[in-house]
Amino acid sequence: MVIEGLEKCIQERTDQYLQKLFTLLRQPSISPRNEGVRECAELLQTLMEESGISTSLIETPGAPVVYGEVMRDPEAFTLLIYGHYDVQPPEPLEEWVSPPFEPTIRDGRIYCRGVGDNKGQLMAQVLAIKTYLDVVGELPINVKFVFDGEEESGSEHLDSFVAQHATKLACDLVYTSDGPMHASGRPSVELGVRGILGIEMTVTGAKWDHHSGNMGNVVPNPAWKLIDLLRTMRDETGKVLIEGFYDRIREPSVRERELLQLMPFDSEQVQTQLGLSDLQMDGETYYRKLAMEPTFNICGFHSGYGGEGLNDEANHAPNENMVTELFFNGILCTCHVVYRLGEFSAIKA
Amino acid sequence: MVIEGLEKCIQERTDQYLQKLFTLLRQPSISPRNEGVRECAELLQTLMEESGISTSLIETPGAPVVYGEVMRDPEAFTLLIYGHYDVQPPEPLEEWVSPPFEPTIRDGRIYCRGVGDNKGQLMAQVLAIKTYLDVVGELPINVKFVFDGEEESGSEHLDSFVAQHATKLACDLVYTSDGPMHASGRPSVELGVRGILGIEMTVTGAKWDHHSGNMGNVVPNPAWKLIDLLRTMRDETGKVLIEGFYDRIREPSVRERELLQLMPFDSEQVQTQLGLSDLQMDGETYYRKLAMEPTFNICGFHSGYGGEGLNDEANHAPNENMVTELFFNGILCTCHVVYRLGEFSAIKA
Repeated sequence: MVIEGLEKCIQERTDQYLQKLFTLLRQPSISPRNEGVRECAELLQTLMEESGISTSLIETPGAPVVYGEVMRDPEAFTLLIYGHYDVQPPEPLEEWVSPPFEPTIRDGRIYCRGVGDNKGQLMAQVLAIKTYLDVVGELPINVKFVFDGEEESGSEHLDSFVAQHATKLACDLVYTSDGPMHASGRPSVELGVRGILGIEMTVTGAKWDHHSGNMGNVVPNPAWKLIDLLRTMRDETGKVLIEGFYDRIREPSVRERELLQLMPFDSEQVQTQLGLSDLQMDGETYYRKLAMEPTFNICGFHSGYGGEGLNDEANHAPNENMVTELFFNGILCTCHVVYRLGEFSAIKA
Repeated sequence: MVIEGLEKCIQERTDQYLQKLFTLLRQPSISPRNEGVRECAELLQTLMEESGISTSLIETPGAPVVYGEVMRDPEAFTLLIYGHYDVQPPEPLEEWVSPPFEPTIRDGRIYCRGVGDNKGQLMAQVLAIKTYLDVVGELPINVKFVFDGEEESGSEHLDSFVAQHATKLACDLVYTSDGPMHASGRPSVELGVRGILGIEMTVTGAKWDHHSGNMGNVVPNPAWKLIDLLRTMRDETGKVLIEGFYDRIREPSVRERELLQLMPFDSEQVQTQLGLSDLQMDGETYYRKLAMEPTFNICGFHSGYGGEGLNDEANHAPNENMVTELFFNGILCTCHVVYRLGEFSAIKA
């Protein structure tokens, strides 16, 4: 189905649309430290209203949700688009080639904090609605928008927001485009995402740090204790040994395996991109591991002295200093692990 | 052998001797950041000269060695006393009850940076010589002093100093009192110290951090790789699996086991002191592990996100930020381990 005039309209408005996106990009909205978030919500609301979308800011105990709708007919098919207008902090600033909140085009790409996650996508959706309305006059379906302001800090209040506004949010399909492009550049549709479970484990030892020359072999080292704990959870081949970990994971079906095999995969390209030389797997294995197997990841492991400066995680007695005390048993060892649950998340090319 | 007048002289001079010690304590000598070290060497030299010891500052590429001697007769027995006049940094300052470089007496103890490590001991030795010379007139042996200014930063130049001044340092016995008191309060003599070998291991992974949701199971996690490496080195019981690790370790002799059993050991007291509830071992095991077995210690293990603030050890792409990004594969994992070699180091009560 080709709708006449859409393409032409977009071409004519390219500069105008880019300026709207740039206006949104220039507004910092760093949710992890609540910097400019509400200002960004209000700006986004204005940009949506200018696109013919009825909007409201819906308060949560944290950042407001920017809600929008274009209702054609209560009986019509209803699409709900999820996106988020908040961004990660831009630090370390010295690594930016151009300022993080000043959009800059280089080699045909826009560089700015948040342009790919997720302000670029959500403005594409908003401006697509505007274009369609301006060219055709009316949408064939109902469209609702939920633009989250806390995605980058964990969407703490989204659950209760959805529960509280279930009627308003009722729809036939939820659409979100927040994730990486496939390396082949081909468009893809994700059929699901894996759940997540984060666990923090802390092992403590003696009341204060001890020199390994004075107390080694006698005072237990929390780092070894935690490693001994972790080794009960996963073997050297990567298989997770936790009881029940694979219980709800099913094998891919014949059809799914066929689809996994069909997906574009260039092992040389993937290795070069990742900077790895020992990623020896075929495409089916690669996509199966990515999409159909749960992961058990260590996101952080911290114990004892870690280089220059004090290690704030380890308590220590006032007459013991860690800046230059290289050899001791740390008294505290913290490890963040993440389980990603194995729901189906294949990509169809 | 009781020498008349020594005790009386010490009692009469208690205040005067304390003031000499306090003068030394008030002079910071923080070798890890070269703060006040030379000033302290010069001050120590003066205090030693006042005690009847011929001294000289001997330069090294780092801090000077304060050398001293009281020579009775070239043929006489020669004792060389090793000590160090440098101290650890006093940070964190807020944990000090009294200022770190202002000696303060509370409950019969002197509190000041360096008083127990090692300025107190070395001044006791210097003032003992002074007392003996003043009361008796002459020492029965020759005494030499080597006071190191780099002990707290690794005594980097001591090896070459000793090699260069071998003739000057020739002696029959080396004495050092730099270590903990036995918990029983009883005097002890250490018969040796274990050597040390420090190793830093760094495992790298992909060129930048990856979200476990996007690349988990495919991009190897350096933390798991390092844990897998460490688990080949030590089993869950603490036995070290590295080839040759125990090769030069001998079993204690019957006489040594008897001595280990004779040493005062109160498991309740040790547990309370350490803040541990599961230190279930008898005295012989405790002292054998401390003194006659090599240790394999992890002094630091650092990978990925570790709480608030940036983790400087992990490189990351400019558009990826770790402050709030909880779930990723760290690209760098560093671990410091220390082997303590198993020479005999028993304490005889």
